Amino acid sequence: MARVGPFDLRLHDPGEPRSVADYRRRARRALPAMVRAYLEGGADDGVTLAANRSAFERWRLCPRLLRSAARRDLRTTVAGTGLELPVALAPTGMTGSFHWNGEVAAARAAERAGTRLVLSTASSYSIEEVAAATGEDHWFQLYPWGDRTVIGELLDRAAAAGYRALFVTADVQVIGNREGERRLGFAVPPTLTPRRIVDAGLRPRWWYGFLRHRRIALANLVTGTGATEALRSVAVHQGLMRPDMSWDDLAWIRERWQGPLFLKGVLRPEDAVAAVEAGATGVVVSNHGGRQLDGAPASIDALPAIVDAVAGRGEVLLDSGVRRGTDVVKALCLGASAVLIGRPFLYGLAADGGRGVSRVLEILAREVDSTMALIGANSVAELDRSYLSDRKDPRCTPG
Amino acid sequence: MARVGPFDLRLHDPGEPRSVADYRRRARRALPAMVRAYLEGGADDGVTLAANRSAFERWRLCPRLLRSAARRDLRTTVAGTGLELPVALAPTGMTGSFHWNGEVAAARAAERAGTRLVLSTASSYSIEEVAAATGEDHWFQLYPWGDRTVIGELLDRAAAAGYRALFVTADVQVIGNREGERRLGFAVPPTLTPRRIVDAGLRPRWWYGFLRHRRIALANLVTGTGATEALRSVAVHQGLMRPDMSWDDLAWIRERWQGPLFLKGVLRPEDAVAAVEAGATGVVVSNHGGRQLDGAPASIDALPAIVDAVAGRGEVLLDSGVRRGTDVVKALCLGASAVLIGRPFLYGLAADGGRGVSRVLEILAREVDSTMALIGANSVAELDRSYLSDRKDPRCTPG
Amino acid sequence: MARVGPFDLRLHDPGEPRSVADYRRRARRALPAMVRAYLEGGADDGVTLAANRSAFERWRLCPRLLRSAARRDLRTTVAGTGLELPVALAPTGMTGSFHWNGEVAAARAAERAGTRLVLSTASSYSIEEVAAATGEDHWFQLYPWGDRTVIGELLDRAAAAGYRALFVTADVQVIGNREGERRLGFAVPPTLTPRRIVDAGLRPRWWYGFLRHRRIALANLVTGTGATEALRSVAVHQGLMRPDMSWDDLAWIRERWQGPLFLKGVLRPEDAVAAVEAGATGVVVSNHGGRQLDGAPASIDALPAIVDAVAGRGEVLLDSGVRRGTDVVKALCLGASAVLIGRPFLYGLAADGGRGVSRVLEILAREVDSTMALIGANSVAELDRSYLSDRKDPRCTPG
Amino acid sequence: MARVGPFDLRLHDPGEPRSVADYRRRARRALPAMVRAYLEGGADDGVTLAANRSAFERWRLCPRLLRSAARRDLRTTVAGTGLELPVALAPTGMTGSFHWNGEVAAARAAERAGTRLVLSTASSYSIEEVAAATGEDHWFQLYPWGDRTVIGELLDRAAAAGYRALFVTADVQVIGNREGERRLGFAVPPTLTPRRIVDAGLRPRWWYGFLRHRRIALANLVTGTGATEALRSVAVHQGLMRPDMSWDDLAWIRERWQGPLFLKGVLRPEDAVAAVEAGATGVVVSNHGGRQLDGAPASIDALPAIVDAVAGRGEVLLDSGVRRGTDVVKALCLGASAVLIGRPFLYGLAADGGRGVSRVLEILAREVDSTMALIGANSVAELDRSYLSDRKDPRCTPG
Repeated sequence: MARVGPFDLRLHDPGEPRSVADYRRRARRALPAMVRAYLEGGADDGVTLAANRSAFERWRLCPRLLRSAARRDLRTTVAGTGLELPVALAPTGMTGSFHWNGEVAAARAAERAGTRLVLSTASSYSIEEVAAATGEDHWFQLYPWGDRTVIGELLDRAAAAGYRALFVTADVQVIGNREGERRLGFAVPPTLTPRRIVDAGLRPRWWYGFLRHRRIALANLVTGTGATEALRSVAVHQGLMRPDMSWDDLAWIRERWQGPLFLKGVLRPEDAVAAVEAGATGVVVSNHGGRQLDGAPASIDALPAIVDAVAGRGEVLLDSGVRRGTDVVKALCLGASAVLIGRPFLYGLAADGGRGVSRVLEILAREVDSTMALIGANSVAELDRSYLSDRKDPRCTPG
Repeated sequence: MARVGPFDLRLHDPGEPRSVADYRRRARRALPAMVRAYLEGGADDGVTLAANRSAFERWRLCPRLLRSAARRDLRTTVAGTGLELPVALAPTGMTGSFHWNGEVAAARAAERAGTRLVLSTASSYSIEEVAAATGEDHWFQLYPWGDRTVIGELLDRAAAAGYRALFVTADVQVIGNREGERRLGFAVPPTLTPRRIVDAGLRPRWWYGFLRHRRIALANLVTGTGATEALRSVAVHQGLMRPDMSWDDLAWIRERWQGPLFLKGVLRPEDAVAAVEAGATGVVVSNHGGRQLDGAPASIDALPAIVDAVAGRGEVLLDSGVRRGTDVVKALCLGASAVLIGRPFLYGLAADGGRGVSRVLEILAREVDSTMALIGANSVAELDRSYLSDRKDPRCTPG
Repeated sequence: MARVGPFDLRLHDPGEPRSVADYRRRARRALPAMVRAYLEGGADDGVTLAANRSAFERWRLCPRLLRSAARRDLRTTVAGTGLELPVALAPTGMTGSFHWNGEVAAARAAERAGTRLVLSTASSYSIEEVAAATGEDHWFQLYPWGDRTVIGELLDRAAAAGYRALFVTADVQVIGNREGERRLGFAVPPTLTPRRIVDAGLRPRWWYGFLRHRRIALANLVTGTGATEALRSVAVHQGLMRPDMSWDDLAWIRERWQGPLFLKGVLRPEDAVAAVEAGATGVVVSNHGGRQLDGAPASIDALPAIVDAVAGRGEVLLDSGVRRGTDVVKALCLGASAVLIGRPFLYGLAADGGRGVSRVLEILAREVDSTMALIGANSVAELDRSYLSDRKDPRCTPG
Repeated sequence: MARVGPFDLRLHDPGEPRSVADYRRRARRALPAMVRAYLEGGADDGVTLAANRSAFERWRLCPRLLRSAARRDLRTTVAGTGLELPVALAPTGMTGSFHWNGEVAAARAAERAGTRLVLSTASSYSIEEVAAATGEDHWFQLYPWGDRTVIGELLDRAAAAGYRALFVTADVQVIGNREGERRLGFAVPPTLTPRRIVDAGLRPRWWYGFLRHRRIALANLVTGTGATEALRSVAVHQGLMRPDMSWDDLAWIRERWQGPLFLKGVLRPEDAVAAVEAGATGVVVSNHGGRQLDGAPASIDALPAIVDAVAGRGEVLLDSGVRRGTDVVKALCLGASAVLIGRPFLYGLAADGGRGVSRVLEILAREVDSTMALIGANSVAELDRSYLSDRKDPRCTPG
């Protein structure tokens, strides 16, 4: 950087990403169309996908002034684990498709930030690999695939590898209708069309990582490595869905698993109550990022009634639609202990590997911190509904 | 498909249609502008046409988790007929204009899927032709054109040909103001403008079918075939509308017809009650796909009050705006026994003849099935309002 | 039109206008930018201009079926005058700027259709000229310009020329802020910029009529003709506004005028009540087509409370935003005796002179007629609120 | 201007600005991208920035007719100072970046119009310079930067220079996340990128003023002049934010300052009540023009509850989103004594220096005057809620 009179002279403004949206733009440039479709797709017409965002915008934050909020305490506790910020990484399948170092990079970035990754059953790196790459107190997400034998083995492996908290996903009875994804043929192995060959020329970094490391598919379901893994994964994925899962199955899992357990995908208050009555530590209010049932309510809209119904008997987390620190703060004000982010960390991962994930967490932490300063809250514990307007009336009434 | 290392190599991705919207795009490419205008047109400014879609989006589905919905039973009963899926084909006029094999292909596709076509009075194939092409238990839609003599003859022909259920359309007192259609001159015979001659070059398949088979116009109103039929149809169509129809006429039809009878085009609860009190088996809640009265309510919005008013004394069906499995499920949750689809099956027909109609029915059946799995319903009979949020509040409250 | 096999062959589809929107498109092509700006402009940011349309769309029509509406009676009575349709022509200033034959053509078209033009004080043809061009029972709109001497003279001239009904405009205390109009300099005489000289080449018909007939300005305020009239008009127009008008002035006018009298521009129930208590025959609910106070309510939204407050003690008319037969029917259902149309008839006039005005009235009459058939109403007198949903709830509830 | 027959001939229509929006367009053309970003930017996604405008549109004005409003009295009183119009200039930082003569030009324009500028702590001209450039009775805005020593010195300087009213800003606990601004690098000194060098060629006037006068940065925080000032300002700006400010600090300031004192940035009724109970003269309802907390309510939506809570014990002003005279009138109807405008006067300043500021004030005064005539109000004092519809129901009900 040369100096020219009173100016700094730079030939190019690097335009460092400053928001999740910036990382999204970078990720979209970095990824082939088929992976983009997998990353961004919503079920059917994307009604719930869009509602996840617009619902957040409808709640208004009501700042309190002169509250002496010099330093904001962002720490929260989830399942007995203290987190440095109220944001954890959601379980995402086949994370290696976004960057070859997949869940390992994400888990390390979470650890560096003082939070956690929930490792997906459908991960590109195995339960054991991710555990080995990071410290202790891991979190595992369970797809109840196959039968109790399969599930039992997964739970045993997770327990043996040091996973403590379990997130049981209940909203994938069948695979949601993500047409963009189906249309672009995100199959393993990918079909080579002329368009994709051109794409490979434009995105050599992704294709090189992909071909070099082959970290696309379901690492937990294979013992070998290499091509066979890829070949089997999708068939397996389709065949193992369990629409017949019942509360009995949850009770069985609850008995089988010693640590904290969350039911993920809850949108109705009764289901949240049933979960804690069945011994769950808590629930994750989620519509699976709009990827499963199109027409499901936005998770932030579903949250308040669930918090009321659970009434302190369990923890309530939230995912789906979080993109800003203000979203996080709104969820906490409505009673969530923390939020999970899926796409935001994948944007960072796709754009810049583990460093991108770290930056996304930093950006959100900084935004949460600023928002707390601006509304006059000194700590996450102070956040409650008094900081929000009514959802349907964007005014701040006395209270 | 050649193999290149770990890839399948395909020169072109065929992009098979995966949704009604995909078939719509194909149909639009396949059809001349004048037929497209006929297919897509709404009355006046299309306010009701658009509301039919946006109203469905406003209702939220509230999933129940862990409901053991391993296999979903999509069967329903309409007018005593068991259907394999809660979707039948609506009566559509001049169906031969979309594909020369018109109602015959549609009726056969419906039969294959275990459902029914409601044959329009204004069909391109006659009552007898369609009956001959399919099995038994046919459904007929009656436009009360002309006088009781004409109506009586139509009813006698239908009964003689094995039609059992009758749908009396009451919302075409006059032809709706479809300006696109009027502007583009969907007259029979069509006027040849230079633009159309170009169009014929671009869509030889449609024009060949049209010129070869001449299956555009009102087959039920002519005895002969050929050009005379085409020449007379529009004039006839205009002249036979009956704005003077009254409840007395319905009573007369009710007496004249032995089988189940539905009044079609109902949007007010009182009219539905009057219909069942006049001996109707049920009603079809419909605004004629937004083609008649612009400013009429969306049919899904009109449904609940009608179901409440009928209170089990009759069956309630719905059409207008159904494009997705979630739409079907929402209508069933609000009390409909089944829905009718018009444009969706015509998209399939225009794109790919009878096979397209079959595929549209398959797509909707699969979407209904997935939606039921995702909301935790095992059968159509289980669907009720507890699966829906309130229309104005997109949240799932306890219930 | 040649015949080619089964086709009619036409070299060009003339695309006859079929709606007010079609005439609008034609008018926009026919007029220079400065006149278009005058025709289409709303005050400030056009919030009320847009609300006038969107408010109509929000009311839903609830059809009654099988009502034996063979023939619909469109007649209504305004100020004791029987009209063949519930639509009259609103007063519009400088109507000669749209077509040189201005108010004379409009008044004749209204007469042919069995309705009336309300002649504006700011007309391009004088009180006497318009009266001479048509039969009897004329309607006059009064801008209370200048002082009681000026007003008195205008009233005397109107009475002497056979005008019976008087419409006193109260919502032009100052000229609304129509920026488009001000920006494009619709001054008299017009400033010639290079852009306008090009425009003149593109629209020779308009410019010829304008230069040949000089029928732009305020015919009622001049005795001579020719250039002086044009020169004086705008200055006069600005200077004569009367923001100081009071209810005393209305009382004075009421005393001075023998025939029916309407107060025009009413949006509050109290003002409507005050008007009828001051002896007015009725009121015109209007926001001046969105041209005066931006932020005023849509007139259709203001109507119901005014009808309720007047409670039958006076007639209620409506203008602002009417473009369709369904709009007319909605206004009648909410209690208006008739509506006035401004821009719609000007579109017809600009596009095709008096014949265009006639066609616009025919189109609206046909649309009103069809709408009545489709909702099951036999006459204007039958229309009431039971044909409408609640404004905020687009459903048809029992009633 | 030559005469050609009945026309004036002009080679070019100068298109003088007629609204704040016109000045905005001009300002955008006049300014380099980095300054535009500073001028137009909102926090995060601009939700509150947009809501500030859309909220005004949602309130409807309900005109009263025939109210004899010949002359409208626009005067109001703020902090004991009589203003000729109910609009003052908001404090804006680094105003010299829009035009080199910055706050001096703005303060003079305000004085000419009979109103005031609130001088920002972050001004480009110092407290003393602005005081010297204008008459008496100045208004000063305080950022409570640094510690009580710094604040005390600022207050002493302001008092000594003749400032009487003080506006304490409480909503900048941290700098809002204006990404556009951060992305474009509005640093001091500005970084020179090739894009900016091109920009300098396109906008020589701005760059000349900038380089010649160096009036970008924080004049109140430096004693010397020239480059050092610029170099230090941003670092200073960041470091001096005071999120730890409390009601005790306000009490201390209240004691320290003799004149009227307003708390600025209030959005909750409790905070307004606390402010007046702490001795404040009043509050400014504001979300800092959408630049601080994204998701804060629109200020016009927050106003009514605050006016109710204050209940006459203090004055209530409003800023954020005012662009039209109707906006001003709406705020006054809801209980504000006056409004502050920020961006509107900066548009004028950027486009045309002090003359542009004068014109913007003239335009708003004329619009307020017209609006009052059109709703039938003779003076600012008469304005109350009876001139507005309910926010959620755009109708004018009796009242």
